[in-house]
Amino acid sequence: MLAARGGWRALRRCASLPRAARLRVAEALRAREPAEAVTVQGWVRSVRSQKEVLFLHINDGSSLEHLQVVADPSLENRDLTFGSAVEVQGKLVKSPHKMQNMELQAETIRVVGPCDIWSFPLKMKERHPLEYVRQFPHLRCRSNTLGSLLRIRSEATAAIHSFFQDNGYMHIHTPIITSNDCEGAGELFQIEASSEARESAEKTHFFNVPAFLTVSGQLHLEVMAGAFTHVFTFGPTFRAENSQSRRHLAEFYMVEAELSFTESLQDIMQVMEDLFKTVTSSVLSKCPRDVELFHKYVAPARKDRLEQILKSKFMTVSYSEAVEILKRASQTFTFKPEWGCDLQTEHEKYLVKHCGEVPVFVINYPYDLKPFYMRDNEDGPQHTVAAVDLLVPGIGELCGGSLREERLPFLESRLQRLGLTDAYQWYLDLRKFGSVPHGGFGMGFERYLQYILGVDNIKDVIPFPRFPHSCLL
Amino acid sequence: MLAARGGWRALRRCASLPRAARLRVAEALRAREPAEAVTVQGWVRSVRSQKEVLFLHINDGSSLEHLQVVADPSLENRDLTFGSAVEVQGKLVKSPHKMQNMELQAETIRVVGPCDIWSFPLKMKERHPLEYVRQFPHLRCRSNTLGSLLRIRSEATAAIHSFFQDNGYMHIHTPIITSNDCEGAGELFQIEASSEARESAEKTHFFNVPAFLTVSGQLHLEVMAGAFTHVFTFGPTFRAENSQSRRHLAEFYMVEAELSFTESLQDIMQVMEDLFKTVTSSVLSKCPRDVELFHKYVAPARKDRLEQILKSKFMTVSYSEAVEILKRASQTFTFKPEWGCDLQTEHEKYLVKHCGEVPVFVINYPYDLKPFYMRDNEDGPQHTVAAVDLLVPGIGELCGGSLREERLPFLESRLQRLGLTDAYQWYLDLRKFGSVPHGGFGMGFERYLQYILGVDNIKDVIPFPRFPHSCLL
Repeated sequence: MLAARGGWRALRRCASLPRAARLRVAEALRAREPAEAVTVQGWVRSVRSQKEVLFLHINDGSSLEHLQVVADPSLENRDLTFGSAVEVQGKLVKSPHKMQNMELQAETIRVVGPCDIWSFPLKMKERHPLEYVRQFPHLRCRSNTLGSLLRIRSEATAAIHSFFQDNGYMHIHTPIITSNDCEGAGELFQIEASSEARESAEKTHFFNVPAFLTVSGQLHLEVMAGAFTHVFTFGPTFRAENSQSRRHLAEFYMVEAELSFTESLQDIMQVMEDLFKTVTSSVLSKCPRDVELFHKYVAPARKDRLEQILKSKFMTVSYSEAVEILKRASQTFTFKPEWGCDLQTEHEKYLVKHCGEVPVFVINYPYDLKPFYMRDNEDGPQHTVAAVDLLVPGIGELCGGSLREERLPFLESRLQRLGLTDAYQWYLDLRKFGSVPHGGFGMGFERYLQYILGVDNIKDVIPFPRFPHSCLL
Repeated sequence: MLAARGGWRALRRCASLPRAARLRVAEALRAREPAEAVTVQGWVRSVRSQKEVLFLHINDGSSLEHLQVVADPSLENRDLTFGSAVEVQGKLVKSPHKMQNMELQAETIRVVGPCDIWSFPLKMKERHPLEYVRQFPHLRCRSNTLGSLLRIRSEATAAIHSFFQDNGYMHIHTPIITSNDCEGAGELFQIEASSEARESAEKTHFFNVPAFLTVSGQLHLEVMAGAFTHVFTFGPTFRAENSQSRRHLAEFYMVEAELSFTESLQDIMQVMEDLFKTVTSSVLSKCPRDVELFHKYVAPARKDRLEQILKSKFMTVSYSEAVEILKRASQTFTFKPEWGCDLQTEHEKYLVKHCGEVPVFVINYPYDLKPFYMRDNEDGPQHTVAAVDLLVPGIGELCGGSLREERLPFLESRLQRLGLTDAYQWYLDLRKFGSVPHGGFGMGFERYLQYILGVDNIKDVIPFPRFPHSCLL
């Protein structure tokens, strides 16, 4: 019998027809018992030819570890090189080596696709830096680091969907093209039909009004929370900010959730904390070797710290307390901390350090700093709203959320002062028909990956390092 | 003890603290045993006041069925109307009525948010047509039909992710912004930073080159299939086509998958068929009442047909056979069927009818009709490629796929003839470094929903009926 990972079709096929089993590398490595007539397909990661025996390592992307193939030297041929694609048939046997469980004794080796090793930018057994492989957006996924990253990204994606499903949230595809700019959260991308289409349509805008790429699905989610109480979305969002930065992408993924019948900011914070811990635990348990690679070669010794964080409760400080902490700090800041001013990156860094390099919730921000939809705390003289940011070491803001203003009079007067009443008539409308206390938050998915893996440049946690690096894609 | 749906937090909380249980409506309805001190929150769907007793129906979007609340008339108040949001505390008891399992005997009813019923466009116990509710994009989710649609959409989304995960596919977020137009599959949307941002950047294009919204993630997935063998994506795609059509959206969702080490078109078709059947079975078993609503009021009696289809093998005809069938047809077509010409909607409809109104694969299309990346069948004189379309009754093309041309010389000469060698250098590159036979397909998610639910207008299967209907959103 073979150990299952997931419940892959290949494995089930193997269970019923052990004599013709096509196995993924991960399945072969985890097999508990030997098996005859096994077929494994993948790409050669190393070739070592000795007088008596030929050793290959092959990999099909299902695992960081390679499968060792042991073959008679007569099976060698000139196309069997690093990078070539092969199909190996043989016996899966217990490996005599401590470092691996099983190995494949080859009976036949077929080179399915040869590799032009002289022009192939990846080299055998070399650890290529992230900056180097970023130059090859169509090939870097065959490096160990990007392989691990993409397995982690896929597992984290699945874990996020599971977390919300298990907790009774409904998934909503919020619009990507919208005429709404949400909150003026950032520079927008505008869209039009490409020139040919525009000419034939003979009008200024394809949609009659200016249309943009979404910066957040929050307002749309709020609509849905008014019918389904618990909703989430996990999709691309866009900001036309400087794409050269290590911290920003023009296109990035955001997890967003809204909860109705929620009267306390603590309830929102609890969901943020649960989401972070559940997804991280899932990634750590499903991709231990992949995470290890990052913690070994990219950001040393973060794993203990991460496991420690999963065990302890996140800290909370109010914005006002935070300002006091910053004012008492011996450090001199470029921006002087002052009640009513935004926290700068230097301030966030100090706060996180002050709290012991753990995630910290900062709550109740000044009313005048925050968008119109955040709930008025009706306090004073330092007037605040029920907003929360989750700050994490090395990244800064990972999540942001708030209670939303569900009271029609508060919202009406605020929108009027801002001259936004007409634009948000539909949003006011929602407050007339069974409006309930609610709140929500968003988490940047790439920042999440950067944080748990210790990756400095955000371009290294996305599948394709886009513009300006990959104009060809 | 209460019956679980999913494994919702609320339920687990209830198990340990039965005296303070907050239950979703779906949980309350499925409870197996009575419970004291239960809280249910939701929106009032009907109020019926009698001399001795007050009946409410409340719903929180977790279920098509409402929970009946039975209360003393003294609990009535003037804000307790259709559409208002309430929190009801009381005892969950077995209902004396056959049609429902449990009901809630109210001890307290709190109106959390009143509803201005005179301006609320939805009316109590009225079945509003889809065309009517489409006018209220921010409120229609509180109608029964859209509630059912969105629960089905959420379940289908989860089932699609599960299908691929269970079968060892890796999830990839393919780029939304791209400089690649894939295959000239449709009119493109072009993006630029909105005017303010553009001026400050002082250049023609934000990304230095023209950038578009993706029409397909296929080519990016092919890159990943060359490292991970089985990959999928499920995200938004865009076509700048006439947005007024009942069949087309400017923004729609597509499921796409690529499989390496795949030499036969039948293997691709098998995955298409498995995907369709697995997801549909999952939706039918998890949302039976929601699907029933559509089959009862939108497209009568489709359920039997759908269940029949799930049990039988999809049919396959070659393009050449299809043309012969069309030529022999007694029907006169607007477009005369001719080998080498595209199948028109009228042709597809006839074929599906000819085959008994079941899904039909049409395979091996003329070489000259199809994009450069499809694999040459090297046949003749009627030269074809290994392409497949899945046609379904009432919709036409639901899925499209092909084997991809993995052989460098074939691809080189084809791209050269098309003058595309420079643009696709990276794609040629992939064929130099361990290229393997592979193929893939895409399925339109909205068309899938239209087909299984019998919805005529594609705008009724998306969460927000976008432009031109919802400029406010």
